Amino acid sequence: MHSFEQWVERNQERIQRDYFTFLRFKTIGTDPACRSEMTACASWLQRYLQTAGFSSRLIETSGHPLVWAEHNQAGPDAPTLCIYGHYDVQPVDPLELWLSDPFEPEVRNGQVYARGALDDKGQIFYAILAALAFQELQEKLPINIKFCIEGEEESGSQGLSDALPKLRAFLKADYLLVPDFDLLSPDEPAISLGARGIVTMEVTLTGSKGDLHSGCYGGIAYNPNRALAELLSQLWDEKGRVQVPGFYDDVGAISEKEKKLYSFRGSEEEYAKQYGIRALGGEKGVSLMEANWFRPTLEINGMAGGYSGPGFKTVIPAQAMAKLSCRLVPPQNPKKIAEQVGSFLTSRAAAGMDVNYRVLSAEPAFRGQAASRLADAVAGAYTDVMQRPCHRILSGGSIPIIAQFQEMGLQDVVGMGYGLPGDQIHAPNEHFDMNRLSKGILTVARTIQRLR
Amino acid sequence: MHSFEQWVERNQERIQRDYFTFLRFKTIGTDPACRSEMTACASWLQRYLQTAGFSSRLIETSGHPLVWAEHNQAGPDAPTLCIYGHYDVQPVDPLELWLSDPFEPEVRNGQVYARGALDDKGQIFYAILAALAFQELQEKLPINIKFCIEGEEESGSQGLSDALPKLRAFLKADYLLVPDFDLLSPDEPAISLGARGIVTMEVTLTGSKGDLHSGCYGGIAYNPNRALAELLSQLWDEKGRVQVPGFYDDVGAISEKEKKLYSFRGSEEEYAKQYGIRALGGEKGVSLMEANWFRPTLEINGMAGGYSGPGFKTVIPAQAMAKLSCRLVPPQNPKKIAEQVGSFLTSRAAAGMDVNYRVLSAEPAFRGQAASRLADAVAGAYTDVMQRPCHRILSGGSIPIIAQFQEMGLQDVVGMGYGLPGDQIHAPNEHFDMNRLSKGILTVARTIQRLR
Repeated sequence: MHSFEQWVERNQERIQRDYFTFLRFKTIGTDPACRSEMTACASWLQRYLQTAGFSSRLIETSGHPLVWAEHNQAGPDAPTLCIYGHYDVQPVDPLELWLSDPFEPEVRNGQVYARGALDDKGQIFYAILAALAFQELQEKLPINIKFCIEGEEESGSQGLSDALPKLRAFLKADYLLVPDFDLLSPDEPAISLGARGIVTMEVTLTGSKGDLHSGCYGGIAYNPNRALAELLSQLWDEKGRVQVPGFYDDVGAISEKEKKLYSFRGSEEEYAKQYGIRALGGEKGVSLMEANWFRPTLEINGMAGGYSGPGFKTVIPAQAMAKLSCRLVPPQNPKKIAEQVGSFLTSRAAAGMDVNYRVLSAEPAFRGQAASRLADAVAGAYTDVMQRPCHRILSGGSIPIIAQFQEMGLQDVVGMGYGLPGDQIHAPNEHFDMNRLSKGILTVARTIQRLR
Repeated sequence: MHSFEQWVERNQERIQRDYFTFLRFKTIGTDPACRSEMTACASWLQRYLQTAGFSSRLIETSGHPLVWAEHNQAGPDAPTLCIYGHYDVQPVDPLELWLSDPFEPEVRNGQVYARGALDDKGQIFYAILAALAFQELQEKLPINIKFCIEGEEESGSQGLSDALPKLRAFLKADYLLVPDFDLLSPDEPAISLGARGIVTMEVTLTGSKGDLHSGCYGGIAYNPNRALAELLSQLWDEKGRVQVPGFYDDVGAISEKEKKLYSFRGSEEEYAKQYGIRALGGEKGVSLMEANWFRPTLEINGMAGGYSGPGFKTVIPAQAMAKLSCRLVPPQNPKKIAEQVGSFLTSRAAAGMDVNYRVLSAEPAFRGQAASRLADAVAGAYTDVMQRPCHRILSGGSIPIIAQFQEMGLQDVVGMGYGLPGDQIHAPNEHFDMNRLSKGILTVARTIQRLR
């Protein structure tokens, strides 16, 4: 390990320079305006992996290109590790809350501020750097390694999902490592043995052909904003339980084994203090970690209707819309849940409102294996690097494509990461630091050695 | 009248050119970016009124400048008519629904498309042109005339309201004409003998210090979008009655006299056909015109929280907000209503949500006089120009400042106008036409003659 530590120390400046180059690409995958930057970023990654000794290529998909790379120096008898990550990032709105340009990394108090600093550019980059370190230290890679880095993780992985049937041979591997997760706390490493599934949806209510003057039509036309508020408010009861019929049908209780395996954490007081969360919205009588790991949720991620800019506009809008998402737990079927939510929304809206419902993505939850060589290797690597015992946790988030990888035979999946809840991923002022990035390099390098 | 008709015909090109110049000023009063265009437009108007023989000036207010003009040629024994209008316009969002630039007038199918084409640039401009016609025809103005044209009507008239105490002498007049209203139908002229009051408000719910990842915090944090939907949905019962305690306390029944005086119109079928209004939202058991003229309303004019742009963002926003307005009827007190709505919103939000409530404007309804010389003059002028009997109606809209004019002694107020419900005021593709603008010139000129 010592030679790797020296390599990291020696290359700090260059690592930061290349990391910043990666962060500067405007890779908001859902924004059509970012299309050419997406391709430019993928090409840059592809060339970077070549530098690290990999055979790499861009694979076109129905969406953004996939970066594919492999290194088979270890030979056909050695195991193969596939490392999955993504170069797309979340949108940056509300832009006015950023203290610096989200695509011009800035270091403040030792933290690197940029969209994607952690999620997932920072995390996939330390995995690539681990491979580069092997190459430059002239250490033979003891196992075969593949990288699969996509551009649509934040929007449902449709392109990769469409391409999967053709990628069977490419994806053949023994282990799947996903560096897109968190530590349990700054001093407590953790591997993530599962994440929730996700369904994203959009519902639009239309009340008239065009916007109406709220004086001339107030008291006459049914306001779509009102209809939307009334519709959405029916989704939960006063105990926070989702009221969509059948929503909890496939959700089981936590087993005794699970209670022992995972490190449950987090009190209401901690959340209130750290994030200023004043109101708790989960199901009453369910502990916070149970709610986040073992219960499905329904959230309104966006809501818009009429005029919300500066000043005032006395309008009854023609339409009002909401973006909704569900997080799902095994074995909930995302398509079934999407249909249940859809029929709830279309049947409960005010009479006469035109309801348009659209499912944007639907992916199931995943769980890693109970007895896992990869889990043992990553946990051991964490302990080697951080000198602390490694916890086993789950994530309330989602990695849409993992369940499909598992269906294709890649069963041994482990999530790792150096993220912390305060890093503001998906929010303004996302950040990560060079110290954790360095530990990420060492942990991946050590994992590779331990899989030998 | 014949000479006025000839003047209008002779000057069609020039009238359109000047009208278009007026429309090109970007005078969205609530948008700070339009500040300099507001002043430029007011200066242009002030010079235009000078050309028409008026002594005119700009009066600075706490908001946008007021254009003031007077013409006292008729002498101290003649009556004085004050004409009130506004040069500010509504915001133009959603811009993508406009078929042409809102500030570059375009003629399509005989209609002039531009923001403000009707409301109120088109309507105040024909009144100014009537005065210009007197000047150019060398017809002595038989009465004294004042113009009061403000820049904040669409946002509550705060600047004019603040300046009113200083303007007592300026405002001394016998009659107040407000060309900011509608016809009853294309062939049926109408004078408006009142409009509703208006209260505009903003409510913001805050649930956390910053935006949260909906995976990591879904099932933990109470989503402000959900809290907002739940809060707003409580504002009405299933019969469309506003649930704010005391909201209807001061609202009386329609008198027999009122039932006879006003021309009630409009069936549900007509509204459905003309505006594509599919759902009616007023109080059950109240006819459409009664709801619009004699009942107060509460509307959600804007609603926003989280991400509603292209694609998807899995966020639990820190905040969600709504813009609300009430339309009021006499003698409802706008400040009292604002307080009642405020305490409803602050007391009914989900526990732990930080509720921030702000009143933006609060103005009462107004009613004209029962026996009115001005009403008779305008109604007669309409019949002279359109050769049809003139109806008496009310407006569901609001002219915030009128009640304050009345309090200062200007009791005889009449609303006139050549607007039609399909003109899309406050909405994309607002339009008016040169034919109605010409009739407006003649109707104001004839009113002036009839007031002699």
